[in-house]
Amino acid sequence: MMSTSLINHQFRLAARPLGMPKRSDWSYTEEPVREPQEGELLVKVLYISLDPAMRGWMDQRRSYAPPVGIGEVMRSFAAGRVLASRHSNFVVGDFVSGLFGVQEYALSDGKGTVKVDPKFVPLPVYLGTLGMPGMTAYFGLLDVGRPKAGETVVVSAAAGAVGSVVGQIAKIKECRVVGIAGGAEKHRYLVNELGFDAAIDYKSEDVTAALKKHCPNGIDVYFDNVGGEILDAVLTQIRLGARIVICGGISQYNNTTPVKGPSNYLSLLVNRASMIGMLVTDYAGRYGEAAREMAGWMAAGRLKSREHIVEGFEKFPETLLKLFTGENLGKLVLKVADA
Amino acid sequence: MMSTSLINHQFRLAARPLGMPKRSDWSYTEEPVREPQEGELLVKVLYISLDPAMRGWMDQRRSYAPPVGIGEVMRSFAAGRVLASRHSNFVVGDFVSGLFGVQEYALSDGKGTVKVDPKFVPLPVYLGTLGMPGMTAYFGLLDVGRPKAGETVVVSAAAGAVGSVVGQIAKIKECRVVGIAGGAEKHRYLVNELGFDAAIDYKSEDVTAALKKHCPNGIDVYFDNVGGEILDAVLTQIRLGARIVICGGISQYNNTTPVKGPSNYLSLLVNRASMIGMLVTDYAGRYGEAAREMAGWMAAGRLKSREHIVEGFEKFPETLLKLFTGENLGKLVLKVADA
Repeated sequence: MMSTSLINHQFRLAARPLGMPKRSDWSYTEEPVREPQEGELLVKVLYISLDPAMRGWMDQRRSYAPPVGIGEVMRSFAAGRVLASRHSNFVVGDFVSGLFGVQEYALSDGKGTVKVDPKFVPLPVYLGTLGMPGMTAYFGLLDVGRPKAGETVVVSAAAGAVGSVVGQIAKIKECRVVGIAGGAEKHRYLVNELGFDAAIDYKSEDVTAALKKHCPNGIDVYFDNVGGEILDAVLTQIRLGARIVICGGISQYNNTTPVKGPSNYLSLLVNRASMIGMLVTDYAGRYGEAAREMAGWMAAGRLKSREHIVEGFEKFPETLLKLFTGENLGKLVLKVADA
Repeated sequence: MMSTSLINHQFRLAARPLGMPKRSDWSYTEEPVREPQEGELLVKVLYISLDPAMRGWMDQRRSYAPPVGIGEVMRSFAAGRVLASRHSNFVVGDFVSGLFGVQEYALSDGKGTVKVDPKFVPLPVYLGTLGMPGMTAYFGLLDVGRPKAGETVVVSAAAGAVGSVVGQIAKIKECRVVGIAGGAEKHRYLVNELGFDAAIDYKSEDVTAALKKHCPNGIDVYFDNVGGEILDAVLTQIRLGARIVICGGISQYNNTTPVKGPSNYLSLLVNRASMIGMLVTDYAGRYGEAAREMAGWMAAGRLKSREHIVEGFEKFPETLLKLFTGENLGKLVLKVADA
């Protein structure tokens, strides 16, 4: 077996961050790779997915998944190539994605590990548009938001991995789509490349005024990735029967003060609207269906995917922070190694 | 016609309140009653309904109903007796309820005016359990909250007109029911008279700790009349798939600072729960259905109704305030005159 001489590097959780994570919240460790046992496979990690949810996993609190323990390898999705396999479903050379963690080599029992095909789309796309973020966008918009043709859909963090897919699917469903994102480059990307009807730069515009302008009939569906002031602005502009999909609240994840709840939530009453939490793992049984439909849209040029790739395993801590400062455009991925 | 010699007294909105309303926010006016024209009826107002929603109607802001204009008779539900009628659906002596306003005599074109029968239940009940509050409880709980037998239902302002009906219907539907209300008397009323499984006195108990104790499996349905800290406490204890019915937010109605949004709203995401606004008027076409079922429960002794009656038209301002200080137990009604 080739695995015996390999050295694995890892980022392990060293401390629970207060506010924005810092490099010292992880320890950088080194250990030899052990051989896979019966039922396991060994994966060489090529790309690590950087997702806002990772911030929540670092906290010690009740959530949908247990916190990462102190001393444990930092949890993350990743994609890689099978180096050795004693698992009946996988052979050496297979490309796979799964919850491999922030490390160079991962052993897996196959649970949650799926084969992917880098000849169809590049490997990082399986961490973005055809991965969890894409699934989140697909089910969150279609199953929870339930947009109808002609309705107005607003999405925040619109140039990110989830938001960019939400907006494009809403366009495919013949909605008016308005994206909220920070900066002129993202604005151009949303309108010129992805075909959004309008974009709002929350860093330079008054969001409420811009929503009034771009959503003259009010907002039917709001897909929220950010919370905070933007959620409150949207609440003032919703229509009767609006659906607000609560997918994330990235503006609040690094708070050291209490989360800012939506002050305008009584607009739900006035407008008989709903605010509905969603978590993609509830749709695990239907990922195949979504992936097939989205792959079709991609092949037809109707769904575009963009990845923001940073190279170098050791850059993990500072790269993750780009999510919270809004520096990424598209799916943020850390490139660890060549295949 | 008997109406020509009658003098009407009214409370008209004089100023938009800042915070808690005060007597000077209304003017007390007097004018002769005019005769009904073709298509109108004249009602002698006997009972005026005092509802939390009246506070919102005094504000100048976008809502589900236009604000009461300065100088207009204060809007309210009321019940009374027909003194004169040139409307084909009503005859002298009919008992009716409708949006008659805070005045001793009201002219109506019949819209929204319904006949009621004081031989079946006393007139004030048609402003409470068999009126808008009862309809709100019925549709808000059953259509929006959708409780299933065995689930845990929590209701705030539980000893009020809406909350007491919500809790009793939830018991009829075989749920575990926990009411939140202020003070020992309300606590006893909920548990001993209405048969709630438990009650929490928010004035003397830690609400989160009490919810943990009384809802060991978590909360499936929360019917919220109050917002604020109690909504936030409930959000920490909801179960997977919980439904939060946003019916009101009385703790925030007299704020002079911004509304306190629910800081724990991201619990919706963790628990794939929803927060849904409701307004009873959306169910107008089904009031008859609800009234028949609730009247049946009342006749069978399964649904109890309690009114808190204050006598004297001129006491309207200070009586309305009891809603916000929590002094009423049951439906708060102002008695204006004998039939």
